[in-house]
Amino acid sequence: MSDKKVLLDYGSGGKASQRLISELFKAHFSNPVLNRLDDAAFLDIAGPIAMSTDTFTVDPIFFPGGDIGSLAVHGTVNDVAMLGARPRFLSCAYLIEEGLEFEVLERIVASMARAAEKAGVYIVTGDTKVVPRGMADKIFINTTGVGTMLTDAYPSGENARPGDVVLVSGTMGDHGLTILAQREGLPLETKVESDSAALNHLTEKLVTEVGDIHVLRDPTRGGLATTLNEIAQSSSVGIQLEEELIPVNDGVRSGCSILGLDPLYLANEGKFLCILPEDKVEKALEVMRADENGHGACRVGTVSAENAGKVIMRTPLGGKRLLNMLEGEQLPRIC
Amino acid sequence: MSDKKVLLDYGSGGKASQRLISELFKAHFSNPVLNRLDDAAFLDIAGPIAMSTDTFTVDPIFFPGGDIGSLAVHGTVNDVAMLGARPRFLSCAYLIEEGLEFEVLERIVASMARAAEKAGVYIVTGDTKVVPRGMADKIFINTTGVGTMLTDAYPSGENARPGDVVLVSGTMGDHGLTILAQREGLPLETKVESDSAALNHLTEKLVTEVGDIHVLRDPTRGGLATTLNEIAQSSSVGIQLEEELIPVNDGVRSGCSILGLDPLYLANEGKFLCILPEDKVEKALEVMRADENGHGACRVGTVSAENAGKVIMRTPLGGKRLLNMLEGEQLPRIC
Repeated sequence: MSDKKVLLDYGSGGKASQRLISELFKAHFSNPVLNRLDDAAFLDIAGPIAMSTDTFTVDPIFFPGGDIGSLAVHGTVNDVAMLGARPRFLSCAYLIEEGLEFEVLERIVASMARAAEKAGVYIVTGDTKVVPRGMADKIFINTTGVGTMLTDAYPSGENARPGDVVLVSGTMGDHGLTILAQREGLPLETKVESDSAALNHLTEKLVTEVGDIHVLRDPTRGGLATTLNEIAQSSSVGIQLEEELIPVNDGVRSGCSILGLDPLYLANEGKFLCILPEDKVEKALEVMRADENGHGACRVGTVSAENAGKVIMRTPLGGKRLLNMLEGEQLPRIC
Repeated sequence: MSDKKVLLDYGSGGKASQRLISELFKAHFSNPVLNRLDDAAFLDIAGPIAMSTDTFTVDPIFFPGGDIGSLAVHGTVNDVAMLGARPRFLSCAYLIEEGLEFEVLERIVASMARAAEKAGVYIVTGDTKVVPRGMADKIFINTTGVGTMLTDAYPSGENARPGDVVLVSGTMGDHGLTILAQREGLPLETKVESDSAALNHLTEKLVTEVGDIHVLRDPTRGGLATTLNEIAQSSSVGIQLEEELIPVNDGVRSGCSILGLDPLYLANEGKFLCILPEDKVEKALEVMRADENGHGACRVGTVSAENAGKVIMRTPLGGKRLLNMLEGEQLPRIC
């Protein structure tokens, strides 16, 4: 396509839409399911399945460690994976502001194709809407994913049990701080970059090789603190965290202290937490640390019957404080 | 919720998001799958499945015959149905401009709940993003649907065969003209309203009771002319239409003639076309006409080996003209 800008008629359903599909989307996403181009995709998948959806509005659309395209693949792949499923197929719906540079769209599509290939998923059906200038900001992407369940006893936020251990797969807050620093042009002493990554290969190993995983969650918007609060409420348990055990990159720590932010409330896009019985911890950490997305895996806390619905942080000096769910909005358009 | 406006923190992932989910979405959409509120929904569905996605940006968001919420349900339900599947589950992702009246969101959510109930689908997982004022226009909704296949020999745009007959389920162009008239404040002599409706109950009867349905498609953006062109190309056949047989409401016909529009290029949201062998036509028309969404069903054309890839219109006077795919964009934000 030689056009320089995305025009309204790319979303018309007519000739320009058809060209966009055949010259851009089919070229990058080509697979036997997508290529039929019916109103719906036929998926030869056995049930039961997991399904998840997310719309990505991140600003800026390109950032250190990723872009809105790779993020849109990772985010939904991860949500499906967190149910103990193997993500298989994604739908992809673009909402584009008239006038977006075509080259920008193409970079995003190429990035999605690479991310999907690495995650092992097909993009099978899609939609493109173009709205007049000023009616959207550059590009928003919705992805919806389906996957096959890997276990009957699938992990759920309802399944944390007293005596369980809380693990995280690595450092907290990298994505959130990166987006904020990038958007606001903050000079940081230490380089930070988004952790955006697909976690499904690692979570599949946990579910199939370790087993008995009670909870898997990726702490995106609202960060680790908010996600743990949701779990504490859903499972009616208390969660105790050890502040000194929670891994945070130096760049994120110093950026947060300058800005007055808490990394535990910042979004992550390539990390997850895992809650499981004590006797599975050693094996789980071994599996996690052997994976490129789990090198920094460690134990950060425990689950108790007391303080049901609450998350309590123990400080290095032995103090305790209540860690609440995120109030208000720290950072709009973080993902 | 007593707030009057949708605020940025409704999309934060924190406390306000949680309230929105429990007080609005769970209240309206409540079902056992959604209510677990994990990152992904667990769907007890047997494969293979059909999957389709669409983002709805219609402007205005309320219009005669529907609103963006009911449209978002109908559009995706219909796309899944057109593959000869029974739509079962929808995801629903809202993209909201900060400051939208909460009452507007609630009306839309209630409308989606009613439309989903009538179509027999569950809304099982969702996402809400709120972007700052001016970064989107009021509200956009993505729905993605999955359904179970009703037949191995599923209808596809590739399956039209010479000798087949083309049926439509009713009048053409109602949705497109309604949106245009509403948006531009056009005074029309005859009342028009959107045909927005879920077609899945009717298409299921066609697939299971009539059988041998080669193609099912809902002619949305680009209208009947564009959809038939896609089919002619995918199936490498010619399609002949009889102009006088194509049903168009009086209001749409007169509105189109004033505006210089062709109803065959206008979007429909509650109509479909069906291509099937001659010996199935009588039974199919009987089934369609007995359904509330097929009263106006009729035969409009035939499929031939000649003129492969083309759609030819025969006029009442015996002339012939080539009916091209939509060029350019007649109406942005029609759905």
